[in-house]
Amino acid sequence: MISRARIKWIKSLEIRKYRLQENAFVAEGPKLVGELLPYSTPLYVAATKEWLDANRRLLNPSTEVDEVSGQELERASLLRTPQSVLAVMPIPTRRLDVSSLQNQLVIALDNVQDPGNLGTILRIADWFGIHIILCSRGTADVFNPKCVQACMGALARVEVHYCDLPEVLEKVEMPIYGTFLDGKDMYQEELSPVGIIVMGNEGNGISEPIARLITRRLYVPNYPEGALTTESLNVAVATGIVCAEFRRRCPRGII
Amino acid sequence: MISRARIKWIKSLEIRKYRLQENAFVAEGPKLVGELLPYSTPLYVAATKEWLDANRRLLNPSTEVDEVSGQELERASLLRTPQSVLAVMPIPTRRLDVSSLQNQLVIALDNVQDPGNLGTILRIADWFGIHIILCSRGTADVFNPKCVQACMGALARVEVHYCDLPEVLEKVEMPIYGTFLDGKDMYQEELSPVGIIVMGNEGNGISEPIARLITRRLYVPNYPEGALTTESLNVAVATGIVCAEFRRRCPRGII
Repeated sequence: MISRARIKWIKSLEIRKYRLQENAFVAEGPKLVGELLPYSTPLYVAATKEWLDANRRLLNPSTEVDEVSGQELERASLLRTPQSVLAVMPIPTRRLDVSSLQNQLVIALDNVQDPGNLGTILRIADWFGIHIILCSRGTADVFNPKCVQACMGALARVEVHYCDLPEVLEKVEMPIYGTFLDGKDMYQEELSPVGIIVMGNEGNGISEPIARLITRRLYVPNYPEGALTTESLNVAVATGIVCAEFRRRCPRGII
Repeated sequence: MISRARIKWIKSLEIRKYRLQENAFVAEGPKLVGELLPYSTPLYVAATKEWLDANRRLLNPSTEVDEVSGQELERASLLRTPQSVLAVMPIPTRRLDVSSLQNQLVIALDNVQDPGNLGTILRIADWFGIHIILCSRGTADVFNPKCVQACMGALARVEVHYCDLPEVLEKVEMPIYGTFLDGKDMYQEELSPVGIIVMGNEGNGISEPIARLITRRLYVPNYPEGALTTESLNVAVATGIVCAEFRRRCPRGII
């Protein structure tokens, strides 16, 4: 049984303001919750008997738990089709240490707006062993329910830092890459195993203050070479293609 | 002024059954409609005075046109934020000629479910000069309004054929590629300039009847090489990475 106050609390976490106030976000479904549990202790769990029977040993005794029917879960869920478990998770507090960026490949997002794109980019980072994503303050919130569900377990393994992006980029001493329609063919350029890859907004690309800090302007060539196109690639797809190419050049890791 | 019957007709085109019955789909916004106009004659257009003043010369005199206020457009639109023009376009009737596939790089989709993913894959095809996409009958409908808006002008330049996919794959005489978690490192394999690249369903990958027809099983390596991952890449991102690699091997075109 979930109390009415509890349901109100869960629903409030759909809104960024309340997520920040409560320092908490909602994750749903056995796959996602199962992936987050080894990394973080939920503040609260609502789950069916079946889920609890199978997973209670994974829960910290301090976590508040409600056993619920499917119908009750539906009342609390932020999804259209709730799936056996809903967890309220703490938002991790992480301090960004700029010096720790120096020996890594890092993704930086300049006002990426769509939560689905952001979630997909987290999965790309996870796949390609990129552990840190820097986000401008105008980028979508990674703890938005749509993004959380698109991220899957990547949310647990990839650190996302919201920061003053130009300020951080000014401090780092490593190549800063960005994709531009008038950049240089990525396949003809040297790609370093450490550096920052900046990806821009869906409609406007990389903003002017950040474009000025890019030291290597790249382009994902279209086909056939030099064909006129009026279109661009989706930002998550472009991120995937660029990250794949960085890793292809150095497949065994550098550390 | 748009008639009530007209609004009902437009709204009905949100549903696949009625799109097939009417052989028509809805495209909205000046960018998308502007990109479709050179390729196809709309059945109907509702637009603001401003749009019509700038674009009437692009319309065929046979097209029925309503000049509307922003508010009226809102009543007819399938979008949350309508944008100056809505066009009802004919669904092109295309016959699939299997022999025409033989000298091209083609994408085939096996039950891709999400209209957003399908739209993103059309943009990828357009970027990489892939002119034909084969879809299994279980794949999302490309004329779904969500997909149309995600496709942008790619919808005009890329031919999408719904077909009995195993039947077509059995007929072609060219390499058939597919991505599998236990496939071979794509960067170590030979990739031919012509062939079919099959991408599978978001949750289940490539289905068994189609997997049997794949002649070259590929894998997009994660990083570092051999690291255990529990996740997979989004299907559109994987499509982008694979197509980019095919085109990188042969950047100047083969024809």
